[in-house]
Amino acid sequence: MAINMATLAATFAATAGEVITCKAAIAYEANKPLTVEDIHVAPPGPSEVRIKITNGAICHTDLYYMAGQDPEKIFPRVFGHEGAGFVESVGRDIKDLKPGDKVLPVWMAECKKCPKCKRGKSNICDTLVYNWSNGFMPADKKTTRFSRVADGKPIHHFFGTSTFSQYTVCDEACVAKVNPDADLSKICLLGCGVPTGIGSAWNIAKVTPGSSVAVFGLGTIGLAVVEGAKVAGAARIIGVDRDGSKLTQGLEWGLTDILNTTGLDKPVEEVIREMVDDGVDFSFDCTGNPGVIYSAMECANAAGGVAVILGLMDSSKTLSFHPSKLLWGKSWTSGLFGGYKGRSQLPELVDKCVGGVINLDHYITHKMPFSQINKAVEMLEKGQCLRCVMDYDN
Amino acid sequence: MAINMATLAATFAATAGEVITCKAAIAYEANKPLTVEDIHVAPPGPSEVRIKITNGAICHTDLYYMAGQDPEKIFPRVFGHEGAGFVESVGRDIKDLKPGDKVLPVWMAECKKCPKCKRGKSNICDTLVYNWSNGFMPADKKTTRFSRVADGKPIHHFFGTSTFSQYTVCDEACVAKVNPDADLSKICLLGCGVPTGIGSAWNIAKVTPGSSVAVFGLGTIGLAVVEGAKVAGAARIIGVDRDGSKLTQGLEWGLTDILNTTGLDKPVEEVIREMVDDGVDFSFDCTGNPGVIYSAMECANAAGGVAVILGLMDSSKTLSFHPSKLLWGKSWTSGLFGGYKGRSQLPELVDKCVGGVINLDHYITHKMPFSQINKAVEMLEKGQCLRCVMDYDN
Repeated sequence: MAINMATLAATFAATAGEVITCKAAIAYEANKPLTVEDIHVAPPGPSEVRIKITNGAICHTDLYYMAGQDPEKIFPRVFGHEGAGFVESVGRDIKDLKPGDKVLPVWMAECKKCPKCKRGKSNICDTLVYNWSNGFMPADKKTTRFSRVADGKPIHHFFGTSTFSQYTVCDEACVAKVNPDADLSKICLLGCGVPTGIGSAWNIAKVTPGSSVAVFGLGTIGLAVVEGAKVAGAARIIGVDRDGSKLTQGLEWGLTDILNTTGLDKPVEEVIREMVDDGVDFSFDCTGNPGVIYSAMECANAAGGVAVILGLMDSSKTLSFHPSKLLWGKSWTSGLFGGYKGRSQLPELVDKCVGGVINLDHYITHKMPFSQINKAVEMLEKGQCLRCVMDYDN
Repeated sequence: MAINMATLAATFAATAGEVITCKAAIAYEANKPLTVEDIHVAPPGPSEVRIKITNGAICHTDLYYMAGQDPEKIFPRVFGHEGAGFVESVGRDIKDLKPGDKVLPVWMAECKKCPKCKRGKSNICDTLVYNWSNGFMPADKKTTRFSRVADGKPIHHFFGTSTFSQYTVCDEACVAKVNPDADLSKICLLGCGVPTGIGSAWNIAKVTPGSSVAVFGLGTIGLAVVEGAKVAGAARIIGVDRDGSKLTQGLEWGLTDILNTTGLDKPVEEVIREMVDDGVDFSFDCTGNPGVIYSAMECANAAGGVAVILGLMDSSKTLSFHPSKLLWGKSWTSGLFGGYKGRSQLPELVDKCVGGVINLDHYITHKMPFSQINKAVEMLEKGQCLRCVMDYDN
């Protein structure tokens, strides 16, 4: 649907400073379907931005928290961290954003003021750390901008983004202003999984032209690693999975070799070392399985290979290894959100999508109106889609 | 002693192509004193270089092999891999070296031809891998250039260097041509420990100006890490050891803080996180102790810290950890010889010593004639010296 910017401006002028009533998908308790109902969205505080979400998707991390697997189990809550939209209004201290700007809410907050941001050696930010385990706005750490229409009771925020709502309020640390030419129905995918994969190839592993790569686990993140490696010029990209259909699908993303681990009669790292002398230059675990994480490390070339852990491993388990595995200069590392700083670096990736360097279309296996969000959740839970993009005007 | 180059040239002209008889320190069996006696040193093969060693030192790795702790236990053998000298003669295929050139024999071989060298992602070379566990010349993998005067029986080489001899023969992969202004009695230390430490700070961790650093274990390698970190502009360099005298000594190298672990009532990583918010930017284990290696990883800043393992850990043990330790972008890595490529990069470090950027004098705690090598071995075994430089003309 083409958006008339004049109409949008008039709408935003009318709502600025007012409480907005709109549809949101509320999680009232763990492991229950979301309730799509009207909520009140208060105007943004001084350092905050109110955003009209036009499109969004669902990521496995939403499912994890919706199932109450986190220690905090915060409910009722508006989940969602893959969304895109327009700035509706801004708080009085906001200088860089104005109504009508295209933006991505970013859970990978970047306040640009905390010691972590100033240190600059990673993309971690104190606002992010707060948002991970709290459901209030980071500015005061005690209020929300969402409330029930019926009784005015507060509804909690999630990850600083809460994109499962037609309007959301984010701290400015959690808003990336992006290319006005970007298609919001596509770049909403840049909220989590795709940048995590692509950025892990580009920013964390720093995949080089002509290199060899192995990717373990071909969900959205694994496929995005494959795409990142391909764009970086890797000569050999080996996909490793126990699901043959995922491997076949991965060929479209850029796999040059596929390795099905079902029924393999020797360790997968041995097979990879037979395929690529001495092992691959870069390996990525996108499974979180301890044995796979270890194999991914083992299959990286001892002489300067880089093994990147992207899967989240069960916190009750540990990995054992001998440091001699790293002695010839191998690195073992990890990172969040592909190493991208949410506000200062994510817009570059949006530009690459606008410029056609990255193809977001093939991650979008389904489309749906926002009102059918519970069906989209179910499809992701059952592994029936990569990403289902929702249209928030329906 | 000033060296007369004309005299040297005449000497070398006279010996070229001839078997040289000279003093060497031979290890006839494990855990026995070395025997200093005359040996025969054959002329170099086509791809080899015969070197007159003028100065050398002893490193803990020599002691490890001299004690027969390696699986191969190769004897009789001429050990030694920290030495410096002049090219005496070269094989017919050698283009880059000529008699009189100042050189460092380098165990970190760099043939520039093997797949590892051509891949270029580390300093590991196939010649190095061969030399680690064999005592023959890498050119034919079956002959030696050393033999007993009495019965002509072959004596094995070590690490491609065998610097415990007044003359040695090295494959060209194991010879670095260095600055003619270099003082051989100092740069002989660049054979192993000092470049390992300095290079780990510069090439592996890539210590940045203003950063914070923790160094666990203050032997020669640890002190060289401290020096490398200081030259790189680190603002905070914390020395960690259980020996107070080593910590005090480290202040001369550039430590800004010392932390004695003896009697500490909480984990050392907690103390370091109290000293430097969120932990240090770079940490180095120079002990090989599993608990210390883990603490060194833990004390590195979760958000992009780099933990470098330099100590060699007992092969019968393993380390356990959870990958979430790396989740915020921490890297765990290691490397040999400070990441320096023996022939193409070590000469730059020699230039830095000639230029006064690196001070080799303070590593030289003792000097001795080569004839007293067993006393130098004993001092190193007992921890009574950092480096004892031997004069091979005495």
